[in-house]
Amino acid sequence: MPVNIPETGQKRIVIIGGGFAGLTLARKLASSNYQIVLVDKNNFHQFQPLFYQVAMAGLEPSSIAFPFRKIFQRHKNVFVRVSEVNEVDTEQKQVITAHGYLNYDYLVVAVGADTNFFGNENIAKHAIPMKSVSEALFLRNSILEDYETCLTIRDYDERQHYIDIVIVGGGPTGVEIAGALAEMKKYVIPHDYKELDEDEIDIYLVQSGDRLLKGMSQKSSDSALESLENLGVKVVLNTRVTDYDGEYVYMKDGSKILTKKLIWAAGIKGNTIPGLPEESIVHGNRIKVNEFNEIEGLEDVYAIGDIAFMPDEKYEYGHPQVAQVAIQQGKTLSRNFKAMAKGKERKAFQYNDKGSMATIGRRRAVVDLPRGFFQGTIAWILWLIVHLFSIIGVKNKVIVFINWVWNYVTYDQSLRLIIRPYLRDKER
Amino acid sequence: MPVNIPETGQKRIVIIGGGFAGLTLARKLASSNYQIVLVDKNNFHQFQPLFYQVAMAGLEPSSIAFPFRKIFQRHKNVFVRVSEVNEVDTEQKQVITAHGYLNYDYLVVAVGADTNFFGNENIAKHAIPMKSVSEALFLRNSILEDYETCLTIRDYDERQHYIDIVIVGGGPTGVEIAGALAEMKKYVIPHDYKELDEDEIDIYLVQSGDRLLKGMSQKSSDSALESLENLGVKVVLNTRVTDYDGEYVYMKDGSKILTKKLIWAAGIKGNTIPGLPEESIVHGNRIKVNEFNEIEGLEDVYAIGDIAFMPDEKYEYGHPQVAQVAIQQGKTLSRNFKAMAKGKERKAFQYNDKGSMATIGRRRAVVDLPRGFFQGTIAWILWLIVHLFSIIGVKNKVIVFINWVWNYVTYDQSLRLIIRPYLRDKER
Repeated sequence: MPVNIPETGQKRIVIIGGGFAGLTLARKLASSNYQIVLVDKNNFHQFQPLFYQVAMAGLEPSSIAFPFRKIFQRHKNVFVRVSEVNEVDTEQKQVITAHGYLNYDYLVVAVGADTNFFGNENIAKHAIPMKSVSEALFLRNSILEDYETCLTIRDYDERQHYIDIVIVGGGPTGVEIAGALAEMKKYVIPHDYKELDEDEIDIYLVQSGDRLLKGMSQKSSDSALESLENLGVKVVLNTRVTDYDGEYVYMKDGSKILTKKLIWAAGIKGNTIPGLPEESIVHGNRIKVNEFNEIEGLEDVYAIGDIAFMPDEKYEYGHPQVAQVAIQQGKTLSRNFKAMAKGKERKAFQYNDKGSMATIGRRRAVVDLPRGFFQGTIAWILWLIVHLFSIIGVKNKVIVFINWVWNYVTYDQSLRLIIRPYLRDKER
Repeated sequence: MPVNIPETGQKRIVIIGGGFAGLTLARKLASSNYQIVLVDKNNFHQFQPLFYQVAMAGLEPSSIAFPFRKIFQRHKNVFVRVSEVNEVDTEQKQVITAHGYLNYDYLVVAVGADTNFFGNENIAKHAIPMKSVSEALFLRNSILEDYETCLTIRDYDERQHYIDIVIVGGGPTGVEIAGALAEMKKYVIPHDYKELDEDEIDIYLVQSGDRLLKGMSQKSSDSALESLENLGVKVVLNTRVTDYDGEYVYMKDGSKILTKKLIWAAGIKGNTIPGLPEESIVHGNRIKVNEFNEIEGLEDVYAIGDIAFMPDEKYEYGHPQVAQVAIQQGKTLSRNFKAMAKGKERKAFQYNDKGSMATIGRRRAVVDLPRGFFQGTIAWILWLIVHLFSIIGVKNKVIVFINWVWNYVTYDQSLRLIIRPYLRDKER
């Protein structure tokens, strides 16, 4: 049965996924003469760069998530459907969702990427990923529950199991979590868990390559490493994690670390949708597109954001899978759709790298701009401003700002609640 | 094995439960010469009067919940333990928790009350209770998910299953939920769910007695009834719900209502702890205490708050199970503990009824004060002020205030996120 959406006589663009790419495209086309159908499995957009603050109890999910329906309250031509997409049928021009099929004139695949465990089922089963607010909340609860458990354990070795944390992956997520955990150890544990010896807490950051933040400049890598080591994080470079059984993390060099929490931020892979041609899937599960973000060999089907791989001589492995690329591709594609409606020429996508940044902790951040490198307080303030302004919604900005000021002044995140989901019998 | 708590030479008071009663007592004794051990299954205090706003997506759980550890950061003689209490052994003077046993010199039972389904297993299985933030979040998700589902259903009758809501219980919780749902229907649905006809939404409030808010004045009952009916709520008085199979709500008069959501706010019963004498348990599972909140027949064991039943000629069925009584009993008992330490005389508890209030919606509330009855805007503002000042923590107050102003100005709660818990394989 077709999904229940009014026929308005407008050409219909179905966008799968409301991340940075899909949402940007939908917003830019919200006042156009196309009918827009945004399909996402969640009813909200998630601001990924701040997941780690949710995990560290510094922000609530609602401050960095925004309901799609609110964004499009005033746009009659935009329809939101919360559903899983099971398949696309590019012959019939249909998207098959859990709630029925959906005809399209144009299809935009913006399904993004998810955690890549590189085929290791043990790690997939026991490690904690960080690619959704739900996963971030899970990590928050795990950390806090384990601190509570520590208080009840007299045996030193057994306590280490609960108290030590291993983070795998030296990208921005790994660096930011490591920094935030180190600050929690320093500023929060001595007050909240007086009976615990915070010096017992070991925070490991394991990176397979020879430097952190490999997408950034060497200066940024060096600065991040120095900052983390100053904060007491044990950074382990040139080492690959090979297995994790929920007790021990095994390294390629034969060593192992006892821990109940392995945070896996070591890689991503594109989400798949059955029905797209096999031959267009390239490394990292990305979908190969041309300079207009069209999937090769298909008609009226586009891919944008993390899922898209567009050959570019400047980027051997494709554009970086970051918000900036996704947003710019959404914008470019929206302009191309508008051009097509007017019979004008489309423009090829060109990535304009505005720079990149990562934060390590209080007044510690690194920023690579086209015109140079910053670190320390200035970089940190720049990081705060850029992220604050990127959050959707005035109220969210205000509440994030209050939380940040509060946390800065009090050296404390105050949201350390372990709220367990209520599950009804049938779901237990 | 004993729970790991340092021996300080101080007499130890173990408090089970950190609700209004237990938390008040712990705070008042935080700077005393007793060692305080607060045991709760959660790591936070929950502000019950605002659960309904969490369920209605107006507030986040973290705004009305506060971590115990933050409250007692500066008090060396207070120890928090997050654990289930399995049993008390009043002979050995021990509390047996999931994490070991705990010796006490004095024991205070402040375990409160939970939803009472009056033995109906069907209702217990299918209805949604409202006695924790987790349950409130569950209700929020259920409401929002069902609105999403409605959009996919073409059949009128089938749609009613998802769209109609039945609330059982005409106390403050039932009245507040009904009012908030009616306002969501009026102000939010037409914008968020444009394709839905909000007139299809029926909100039922079923009350077994002949009036709402039976703990309040007749004027308050009448005013609440009128306000709810003006808002379009179908109030059904003198009717008892006898069964619910997840599809139909069955009434004693033979009628039935098709709904997927039955909110059960019809009664509470005391939480039980094995090991307390059977003969001290009275109606509603409350524990009979004397005027000093001592459990009769036991030594050094007290009960305060919702769980306590203290004979009082003014209150045939015991003091009302509300925050005011719990807070006052916590305060009185703290003074008595301090008096005992000095060898002074204890004082009998006397309930000072400061009045009661309930809110129905925007500028609609009822307030019974000892010196009179208010309704409308003044009552509503009074309600807001009293609740705002009762919330623990300055930051929480600020954030609740911002949310309230925002919701008032925009006619909208903006937290309509369906955040599903992330469960790892082993827990699925």
